[in-house]
Amino acid sequence: MFHQTTDQRVALFLADGCEEIEALTVADLLFRAGIPCTTVSVKDTKTITSSHSITITADTTLEELDPEEFSMLVLPGGIPGTPNLAACPKLMDAVASFARRGQDGKAVAAICAAPSILASLGLLTGKKATCNPCVEEYLDEHGAKRTWARVTVDGNLITSQGMGTAIAFGLAIVEYYLGHAAARDLGNKILYRK
Amino acid sequence: MFHQTTDQRVALFLADGCEEIEALTVADLLFRAGIPCTTVSVKDTKTITSSHSITITADTTLEELDPEEFSMLVLPGGIPGTPNLAACPKLMDAVASFARRGQDGKAVAAICAAPSILASLGLLTGKKATCNPCVEEYLDEHGAKRTWARVTVDGNLITSQGMGTAIAFGLAIVEYYLGHAAARDLGNKILYRK
Repeated sequence: MFHQTTDQRVALFLADGCEEIEALTVADLLFRAGIPCTTVSVKDTKTITSSHSITITADTTLEELDPEEFSMLVLPGGIPGTPNLAACPKLMDAVASFARRGQDGKAVAAICAAPSILASLGLLTGKKATCNPCVEEYLDEHGAKRTWARVTVDGNLITSQGMGTAIAFGLAIVEYYLGHAAARDLGNKILYRK
Repeated sequence: MFHQTTDQRVALFLADGCEEIEALTVADLLFRAGIPCTTVSVKDTKTITSSHSITITADTTLEELDPEEFSMLVLPGGIPGTPNLAACPKLMDAVASFARRGQDGKAVAAICAAPSILASLGLLTGKKATCNPCVEEYLDEHGAKRTWARVTVDGNLITSQGMGTAIAFGLAIVEYYLGHAAARDLGNKILYRK
């Protein structure tokens, strides 16, 4: 049963080759926290195949989506999931717009290789961010103040390192909307230890 | 790309209401480790809906499966996923048989509420096991030597606590087949810290 706790809505983008745990851990934790999360295939069809051959059917497709109905866009990593996300102009336009409109309550979260998408759009210049080691140099070259943390939050940008930090990433999104106590309590409930 | 490292095969069972992260974290880590993992719907059809409304299509169904072709059966938790697994006689027969045939290389792994299935089959009497707090008393009543650990391995039985320990659970299965160094290296690769 889903008990909604906020009017904020999160859109989680799924591409062929996305890292399924990085993606679905966010969906799982937001469901538990009562934060509406819509899974969005970036393909013409709703069904995608993850980087580890898991078949997942999303709630909707990018083509059907009005990003403005959401307050946060979440980009999971994985190869070729990340380049497949980067190849969607409609998504890239929304990501760039959201990242620059923190004052309107818009936010972007990216994990693993996906922070490289934010870097490529020029959104990390002078911003604190973390990422997977495979794209560290790329973030450095694009002016990010890169950290070695599971999760880094700089204003309306949330970044994380990879599959092994996916729970910390999801809990950071819960904390972003519902505060520290809610995230801590949820972490305890799922038996998560840092 | 999947690079197979062992002839051992793992069957991962999916029911409506299963906890998707507990299930798919195992599939993800085994894929990375090169251990063949088949996802198995316990329904007549391959597509299930998880406890947090994620739609997943399994590789096959329980009806089409010959459990003897596998060496390990994995039971994720979630409600009503766990009772839905317990309601499958063919699966319960295989679980009971596998648990008692460690000498034949058969093994069973269960996480969250699913260790209660092993308890209900009388398989945990005198065995060390861990589980979700929601079924601790049930394991105690059925004679388990219950631990408060992320993961407990007793012979051919691997148990774990819940979503927040799913990576530790998956890595324990990797260690079971490929040894400590392989599990440690995979944990490091995904940026997992205990």
